[in-house]
Amino acid sequence: MNYVYIAASIDGYIATVDGGVDWLDQYPNPEKSDYGYSDFIRSIDVVVMGRHTFEKVMTFGDWPYDKKVFVLSRFLTTVPDALKGRVELMSGSPETVVDSISHAGFNDLYIDGGIVIQDFLKHDLIDELTVTRIPVLLGNGIPLFGTLNAPLRFEHKETTVYNNAFVTSRFARTR
Amino acid sequence: MNYVYIAASIDGYIATVDGGVDWLDQYPNPEKSDYGYSDFIRSIDVVVMGRHTFEKVMTFGDWPYDKKVFVLSRFLTTVPDALKGRVELMSGSPETVVDSISHAGFNDLYIDGGIVIQDFLKHDLIDELTVTRIPVLLGNGIPLFGTLNAPLRFEHKETTVYNNAFVTSRFARTR
Repeated sequence: MNYVYIAASIDGYIATVDGGVDWLDQYPNPEKSDYGYSDFIRSIDVVVMGRHTFEKVMTFGDWPYDKKVFVLSRFLTTVPDALKGRVELMSGSPETVVDSISHAGFNDLYIDGGIVIQDFLKHDLIDELTVTRIPVLLGNGIPLFGTLNAPLRFEHKETTVYNNAFVTSRFARTR
Repeated sequence: MNYVYIAASIDGYIATVDGGVDWLDQYPNPEKSDYGYSDFIRSIDVVVMGRHTFEKVMTFGDWPYDKKVFVLSRFLTTVPDALKGRVELMSGSPETVVDSISHAGFNDLYIDGGIVIQDFLKHDLIDELTVTRIPVLLGNGIPLFGTLNAPLRFEHKETTVYNNAFVTSRFARTR
């Protein structure tokens, strides 16, 4: 199963034009919620992300993942020493990537990053989509969704409101 | 107060490229819900929409509104006889339109239609935004949101899930 778990503005942006995600951190968290993140992470085997997301995550300081991370890139040839063994480079079509990771013994993939998510959706390779809506219209930025060859129907699984601010809905692809 | 109350796909489209809204009607409604529509309509004085939406609504058969409707158009010069007295033509900037309607004694406006909604949002003239998310990715179509000059923050008011399928969230503009 391939999972998306991501935050987006009401108008569907995951970052500002320059990749900024500070707007995500401007909300009080009296519930001390992790917005379902640790439950979600427990449910997946590996993380798959694009180069842009990888480079963004590296700016956060401590490496946040305790699962293996596959970074999709046609250009990167090496990962920083500190991440060797934890990060693996890969390239190819979404189908190829899923096959390779499956052959390596991993079945539940966290698909992250705008371009990679759009690419996987275009190939109808996302089984579960969890979107947390942040109550802001950014009006511009890096969009979560792109064009598709055909509509994709989902079933609503559950919606949770955190801190009376963030609305998290989980959808499963109707197959 | 100016209100938006609209359905959109998960990826933010309110209609297919050709204006189609059939995809909205493909969901069973065992709860026989009106998705909050009659409560919403009771709370508003008049409807404000653009010409495209007006022409679309006229194809639905019976005229669905029991409130006065203002149609914004620079081109239309007359309305069908059957709608005289119920529909009024108007043009001008969102500010001008709100002022004119307010001078006519109406204060709670239902702002409808993609272009008009985007125009009002760009002028920060929407006070409440109710979006019903339909669990489908259309991948293309007429977008609900457009670019803005600056981000607009909202407060989450309530979220209701209808028929375990549609997720309706109501947001109020943070002023």
